[in-house]
Amino acid sequence: MPLTLQAPLDMHLHLRDGDMLNNIAQHSAKTFPGAIVMPNLVPPLSSKAEVIAYKSRIIEAMGQEQFTPYMTLFFKPSYDRAFLESIQDEVTAIKLYPAGITTNSEGGVSGFDIEELRPALEAMSDLEIPLCVHGETNGFVMDREAEFASIYESLASAFPKLTIIMEHITTESSVALLDMFPNLYATITVHHLLITLDDVAGGMLQPHLFCKPIAKRPQDRDALLCVALSAHPKVMFGSDSAPHPREAKEACGCAAGVFTAPIALQLLAEIFDTHGASHANLQAFVSGNAQKIYSIDVPQKKILL
Amino acid sequence: MPLTLQAPLDMHLHLRDGDMLNNIAQHSAKTFPGAIVMPNLVPPLSSKAEVIAYKSRIIEAMGQEQFTPYMTLFFKPSYDRAFLESIQDEVTAIKLYPAGITTNSEGGVSGFDIEELRPALEAMSDLEIPLCVHGETNGFVMDREAEFASIYESLASAFPKLTIIMEHITTESSVALLDMFPNLYATITVHHLLITLDDVAGGMLQPHLFCKPIAKRPQDRDALLCVALSAHPKVMFGSDSAPHPREAKEACGCAAGVFTAPIALQLLAEIFDTHGASHANLQAFVSGNAQKIYSIDVPQKKILL
Repeated sequence: MPLTLQAPLDMHLHLRDGDMLNNIAQHSAKTFPGAIVMPNLVPPLSSKAEVIAYKSRIIEAMGQEQFTPYMTLFFKPSYDRAFLESIQDEVTAIKLYPAGITTNSEGGVSGFDIEELRPALEAMSDLEIPLCVHGETNGFVMDREAEFASIYESLASAFPKLTIIMEHITTESSVALLDMFPNLYATITVHHLLITLDDVAGGMLQPHLFCKPIAKRPQDRDALLCVALSAHPKVMFGSDSAPHPREAKEACGCAAGVFTAPIALQLLAEIFDTHGASHANLQAFVSGNAQKIYSIDVPQKKILL
Repeated sequence: MPLTLQAPLDMHLHLRDGDMLNNIAQHSAKTFPGAIVMPNLVPPLSSKAEVIAYKSRIIEAMGQEQFTPYMTLFFKPSYDRAFLESIQDEVTAIKLYPAGITTNSEGGVSGFDIEELRPALEAMSDLEIPLCVHGETNGFVMDREAEFASIYESLASAFPKLTIIMEHITTESSVALLDMFPNLYATITVHHLLITLDDVAGGMLQPHLFCKPIAKRPQDRDALLCVALSAHPKVMFGSDSAPHPREAKEACGCAAGVFTAPIALQLLAEIFDTHGASHANLQAFVSGNAQKIYSIDVPQKKILL
């Protein structure tokens, strides 16, 4: 059955740079007229000039496709209020990575000393710049996200007016946080609605399904499905589509990331249909919730599936 | 410091067949003058003639190396007493695979109906033929071995004089079973003494460390180290060395199995040294315990490391 969606948004997207950007950008734009673009290039985006230059490379790579890139900056505790004010017209959100936790995150935050983070996060809170967080510790791979819960709790309590997005959540424990703190929100990928660790390593090892955070247990996937299908107002779709060259995926030492951009919206529609969830909920999950959480204007574009 | 070991034995070894057998056999023989050879060829070994023929191919592949293959048969519930008596002079043990649980196990046991298994297992018990078991359910990959514990308990209770070897155990829960049932024993691989899931999928995905059962949590590895280093009398070394062609490991859909044969004994010696365990315990873990559990005569060969 044909399905029309108003301005689907991908609230967590890796567009990379250079040849890779040019190869993959239009796959996103065909079904997502807008996306939050992650800043973990090499080196990561940390100045207004870098953001502006990257944005123009993205728009060029999109060719004739209508696409609004919502740009992000790579969080550093040294960002001060004057700097944050100066970048605000070009930056939609700022992304915090724990150091070394995923692709190109080496310059991220080590330790989470609230007082060290306070100047930057209070300024972001005042300026209403959302903080996107890759929430994993460097603990045992199946526990990393659950262990990060206490850091989310500290941040949410210490900065109660800061909008904090728990990116690509994968666990029941993260879902539970949504209803505990008014300022915690989350993105959910399409692959974490579909797969568990069984799909990655239960039969043959599947490098193309390897990502960070790693897919978890069936009950974790069920918890994600529950809030996505019901369009819980604090969750929104973010693909975390993250391409790598094939030789970096099918290798001795496979890079983390699943490239879903070309089929993400179709897969979502199928998941919602399979579970009997309404198109209104799908619309909210892929656009409406994000518009409210981020207070953004969106491109007026309909996508017919 | 040089170290001399008397007749190290590998109590769980995949030698494969054909070119692969010819390529890898001598790697085992250089440090292990005897090994329990697994029967999961294509098709699996299920007749005396097949066992004899495979044994002669193994001995030919060993060339000048002194090596005693202790042969196994692929368990089928249909084996009757007369058959088991007829194969006993050529077969050291019989290996039970749950259907489809690992490489070439499609013809294994489905369901574990004790009454269906009773004729074969009682005859094996009477004839003192040990039963080797790949103990995993088809549940969630991190739970498969722990879920199999109840089947081990049923088998151990129903056939109290049958020697049951829990092969390549990877969990704290399996270690706990050793002291609960007098007729349960275990093999432990060298890789499960070294790695956890973090090493397989915590950083980059490492196909060469992907195996079944998959490596588990740090506390599981610690439980294995505890019984191995103390040479618990019911555990013995079995490498589960399981080679695949490189293109089957570094691929989209990587086969399960770690090829450790060329370095297994050296790694074990290093692990025992690192943890300050005695050479007497290493000797028991790599040979003495197995001799007692299996009541086998071993080749008189010393290995100098």
